[in-house]
Amino acid sequence: MEVSGKICLHETDAALYQEKEGTYIMDNFTFYAPTYFVFGKDTENETGKYVKKFGGSRVLLHYGGGSAVRSGLLDRVKKSLDKEGLAYVELGGVKPNPRSGLVYEGIDLCRKEKADFILAIGGGSTIDSAKAIAAGAIYDGDFWDYYQGKIVEEALPLGTITTISAAGSEGSPDSVITKEEGMYKRSTTGEALRPKFTIMNPALTETLPPYQTACGITDIIAHLYERYLTNTKEVEVTDRMIEGLLLTMIHEGPRVIADPHNYEARANIMWAGMMAHNNSCGVGRTQDWTSHDIEHELSAEYDCAHGAGLAVVMPAVFTYNLKHNVMRFAQAAVRVWGCEMNFENPEETAKAGIEALRRFLKSIGMPGSLKELGAKEEDIEKMAHTACYGDVRTGTLGGFVELKQKDVENIYRLML
Amino acid sequence: MEVSGKICLHETDAALYQEKEGTYIMDNFTFYAPTYFVFGKDTENETGKYVKKFGGSRVLLHYGGGSAVRSGLLDRVKKSLDKEGLAYVELGGVKPNPRSGLVYEGIDLCRKEKADFILAIGGGSTIDSAKAIAAGAIYDGDFWDYYQGKIVEEALPLGTITTISAAGSEGSPDSVITKEEGMYKRSTTGEALRPKFTIMNPALTETLPPYQTACGITDIIAHLYERYLTNTKEVEVTDRMIEGLLLTMIHEGPRVIADPHNYEARANIMWAGMMAHNNSCGVGRTQDWTSHDIEHELSAEYDCAHGAGLAVVMPAVFTYNLKHNVMRFAQAAVRVWGCEMNFENPEETAKAGIEALRRFLKSIGMPGSLKELGAKEEDIEKMAHTACYGDVRTGTLGGFVELKQKDVENIYRLML
Repeated sequence: MEVSGKICLHETDAALYQEKEGTYIMDNFTFYAPTYFVFGKDTENETGKYVKKFGGSRVLLHYGGGSAVRSGLLDRVKKSLDKEGLAYVELGGVKPNPRSGLVYEGIDLCRKEKADFILAIGGGSTIDSAKAIAAGAIYDGDFWDYYQGKIVEEALPLGTITTISAAGSEGSPDSVITKEEGMYKRSTTGEALRPKFTIMNPALTETLPPYQTACGITDIIAHLYERYLTNTKEVEVTDRMIEGLLLTMIHEGPRVIADPHNYEARANIMWAGMMAHNNSCGVGRTQDWTSHDIEHELSAEYDCAHGAGLAVVMPAVFTYNLKHNVMRFAQAAVRVWGCEMNFENPEETAKAGIEALRRFLKSIGMPGSLKELGAKEEDIEKMAHTACYGDVRTGTLGGFVELKQKDVENIYRLML
Repeated sequence: MEVSGKICLHETDAALYQEKEGTYIMDNFTFYAPTYFVFGKDTENETGKYVKKFGGSRVLLHYGGGSAVRSGLLDRVKKSLDKEGLAYVELGGVKPNPRSGLVYEGIDLCRKEKADFILAIGGGSTIDSAKAIAAGAIYDGDFWDYYQGKIVEEALPLGTITTISAAGSEGSPDSVITKEEGMYKRSTTGEALRPKFTIMNPALTETLPPYQTACGITDIIAHLYERYLTNTKEVEVTDRMIEGLLLTMIHEGPRVIADPHNYEARANIMWAGMMAHNNSCGVGRTQDWTSHDIEHELSAEYDCAHGAGLAVVMPAVFTYNLKHNVMRFAQAAVRVWGCEMNFENPEETAKAGIEALRRFLKSIGMPGSLKELGAKEEDIEKMAHTACYGDVRTGTLGGFVELKQKDVENIYRLML
């Protein structure tokens, strides 16, 4: 399952909010998203042209399991590289929740073969692994430094051929890797990690099993909610964009689960997935990322699919945080989930929206409890501790509500 | 009035639609929007830093009338250039519906002074004029060649400090210039014209008279409708994004008219204006641009503000084209304007949406008829002829409905 998630380290995350003359104002921000997107049927046959355009001559082809081989995709890509006279070496074997071991292998291979361009063929896991290799290959120290808080300022150029709509990594500067020692799942960011180009052919996602498709849909929904849950007031434009993208997912998600060969539905989901995470709908506002942080412990511990983990985590987090801002959850309920506003009791509406999300996720085949993920009650304390104190953490998490270990434990218990 | 508009020459415009196995599918497309946006209060003080980042050392400062001088903006920008040790020359005097004469002047000045970077301080007119200079300064022929259908492949690098939320030129590869001989208002495009950076401080728009603010709001709404009116089916994601941005304009527009110093409302409008026109909500679908083409004759002939012209043109065009796709207009009516769907008579709903748009534009102070623009009935035939046959045109216009001269005349008559 090549479904991966990002936590977001944009500038806007740092400040919870600015208080100015008694009101909240939109945060100052910068936005720079210079990836060249090539979208549509058969576009993978142009890969060589774009590698050349962005300066590659010796390419590391990085991919996951056998599906890129079996489907003939890898052969088509190689053919297009051959056509442009480009050299390449291969490194397959990326697993979901990609590991540091393969990253070290990729770094060594790049150096040995003098690769000057990394091409990721796959979903978020493959792209994230490729990003780690791109940064590590030209860094003197241990690449893991970047996942301990160091910003990536230099990396080999990188292109992607996206085969799963989910992570948004194809248009983002972020990467999430799990370190095998300690099983820490951590993220990094840096403009140098943004892919130079991304090839998006929705037809390539048609061969995914429905469960993986549903995991991707869930991840995209989570990227939108993580931005929606903000303490910044008066951010109508990004609210409305997020709501529009959520409505798209609610419309297209069930259609693609019902008919995997619905190209239009897959195309809409693919573009929504990119827009959900390139941060054009997250600028100028604080963001949450609690659900991602809490989920990362589950996928690190039980190796479950990130999207499946998020399906269990989100309703619990939202229920726990509901009273922090009832009207925000009510707004989502009304505008996104079509709930009637209960003007006498907005909390009822807010809850109805969370219930609608829960039903939707169940309807596309996602799990609803820790048990379904294979997670155990006795691990809760440990996971909550790692989420709050592990590695670079300092005791709390959450951009929307500041949560301590006890809160996180309570949230995990809501998932039982 | 520095309010200008673009017509859009993206790849997707060329093909009206692709027919595939009896259905319509999302068009293949490329999307590349590498402008670096710097958004927020006081960000103009960092101008010098960004000119330097993008390789400028000798800058042509291009601006409009006296407001950039009076407000002190020009001084603050110069100070930030001085701080970085950058040289500059100045060329003010850009008028709304910017003219070819000043462009030629700018080209000469750039060559004489060996300028290597153009900095536009103003709204769409100034930015469009700066783009024409940037392209012309390093082109051997007449810059007007580019406005006759030649794509711009090379130009001096360009930055902008946006003082009006309207044209979207700050994030687009397009430019519209009026040639004084014949008063042809024509457009060009080319990736080389995309600004390297754009500084957006919503507070800079606070000094605009309400009429100009309303013109900008109208232009943004038009950029959204031009993309919304499509013959491509199944483009939910871009539909929803457009609807979200329109809802933002409906919410924020009246707030900023009521209180020009509402920073939040201006910030939301500013980001919506950029998103409305960087084409992320227009990819993969045919677009219309009828209203812009019909309006350009009005502003070329009567020198009215582009936004004011659009306010008169849009309801007439939509009414005339309504029967081409009643359900599309009904969708806008329900999702954007909050109309109740009349399931027995969807056309009633579609019309109600257009009426709601008309009322909205009136409420923010926009004109509603040719008379209010100072246009004359006896000019209609000539304008319709120029719109359809003038310059590079070949007898029809419109990406949604193909319109001939008689249709365009009928549309102008609806505005009487």
